[in-house]
Amino acid sequence: MSNILIIHAHPEPKSLTSALKDLAVETLTAQGHAMQVSDLYASGWKAAADRGDFLQPARPERLGYAAESHHAFASHTQSPDVEAEQQKLLWADAVLFSFPMWWFGMPAILKGWVERVFAYGFAYGVGAHGGERWGDRYGEGVLSGRRAMLSVTIGGREPHYRERGVNGRLDDILWPIQHGMLFYPGMQVLPPFVIYQSDRLTEAEWPDIAAAYKRRILGLFSEQPIPFRTQNGGHYDGQQVLRPGLGAGESGTRIHLVQPGDPREALDRGAPDRTESLEMKAGGSPGEALEVQAGE
Amino acid sequence: MSNILIIHAHPEPKSLTSALKDLAVETLTAQGHAMQVSDLYASGWKAAADRGDFLQPARPERLGYAAESHHAFASHTQSPDVEAEQQKLLWADAVLFSFPMWWFGMPAILKGWVERVFAYGFAYGVGAHGGERWGDRYGEGVLSGRRAMLSVTIGGREPHYRERGVNGRLDDILWPIQHGMLFYPGMQVLPPFVIYQSDRLTEAEWPDIAAAYKRRILGLFSEQPIPFRTQNGGHYDGQQVLRPGLGAGESGTRIHLVQPGDPREALDRGAPDRTESLEMKAGGSPGEALEVQAGE
Repeated sequence: MSNILIIHAHPEPKSLTSALKDLAVETLTAQGHAMQVSDLYASGWKAAADRGDFLQPARPERLGYAAESHHAFASHTQSPDVEAEQQKLLWADAVLFSFPMWWFGMPAILKGWVERVFAYGFAYGVGAHGGERWGDRYGEGVLSGRRAMLSVTIGGREPHYRERGVNGRLDDILWPIQHGMLFYPGMQVLPPFVIYQSDRLTEAEWPDIAAAYKRRILGLFSEQPIPFRTQNGGHYDGQQVLRPGLGAGESGTRIHLVQPGDPREALDRGAPDRTESLEMKAGGSPGEALEVQAGE
Repeated sequence: MSNILIIHAHPEPKSLTSALKDLAVETLTAQGHAMQVSDLYASGWKAAADRGDFLQPARPERLGYAAESHHAFASHTQSPDVEAEQQKLLWADAVLFSFPMWWFGMPAILKGWVERVFAYGFAYGVGAHGGERWGDRYGEGVLSGRRAMLSVTIGGREPHYRERGVNGRLDDILWPIQHGMLFYPGMQVLPPFVIYQSDRLTEAEWPDIAAAYKRRILGLFSEQPIPFRTQNGGHYDGQQVLRPGLGAGESGTRIHLVQPGDPREALDRGAPDRTESLEMKAGGSPGEALEVQAGE
């Protein structure tokens, strides 16, 4: 039995998105898994990343968010709501992200969860940076060994989200989330569960949708993740640029998926020991040239 | 002389992002343009979209965000902060979006600005939906005739944001913003102004950066926008899927850029009259099948 965390972002408990979340809890609990749910609207989650996130700022006269995140993470002076979410992530074997697509992305309250919880030393700035190595990221990192899946309701029509549909391909729209936010700190990302035209769903359609979602949830630990290439598995060079010959015939984000026939990836270290404490994960000292996930 | 609006999202007035915003104000004011700045952190902008956005909800017992947005926009019962921002957008000839890239997207506070201000009837659900027409969007809509440009600071290294770089192509990462949020309601989007490795910039580098940014700002009304295909200009069919033969040899988001040699786009109506009042823009009645930019 495993530990499963749901990060849920919808303001209405009677919404379709919330019904899917409830179904996930029920289904996984019945399987014997341990569950935690972070219901961001219900808990009044603070969406905006700001100086209030740091109990003892190192440089209060000029907020550098990444630098303060580094300091607060290392010195245990993060806001308690942030640290509580990090502990849930460390506890979890799988994380479901349950939200409606709003303007081609996650709701602001969930984006703010990522910005505040994915601290420097926790989700970025992890591992050695220097020479040809640029951190433990994209398949490695503190959250490696965990699975993630999006459960998304979309108001628009499915054909609009195909490659030639006017919105562009759903995989491209979700790229910043699935690759940039979830694979970056090490999670394996399953293909998303998606409901289109969610606003005009009828009661009669619910049983089929529920059955389809249940199938996906029950496959959480057996389904194949999206084959994003790991940064340090040998497919990228010392500048983190894809080596010649790989991704041939592809363009755009698809270049970054492992193709049949590609050389096997070989990470020079496995997933970090799951029992390590938070402080052992903090990478680098303030002076080091680390990748910073925050513009200035 | 023109009207220019800056939407600024950074918590620190002494940051690089804020310095660029100040430079834009100074440069454009000196040119004689009228300026307004929405400084989201300074004004304590409410980031999370929720029931508080609607003064007289039509259905308080079950929040449907899109439906309430439609109702509030049409009945002038939107939250006053939302309506004030809409008026600024209608006033503006060009809009600069000034923010640091955080986790491959805009800060949550700015995403929440989009979710709340881009109301149903204002930025989506505009125009006729039915038959082969699916609204005035992607090049048409209430905000057509306006220009938009992102001014973005990025912590990461430039090679990582090339097509074969480990983060993927910057244009793909910005696709949900530039195409999905800005072109959708009708704005013409200029290529972004980007500073990489913004956290390790030295004082000595500032004059060159300032000069480069000034050049871009002074080209706000003369530079060529990104050639996104309009939805209703003839390149997409009645299902809003790109017609065969267009986008040949391309894949991913690049399919949706006009290529040399493509047939000329012909919109069946021009930009809406800029003097129309807000209420005249509201499209469709509640019962109509409109595109909804909000999952349920």
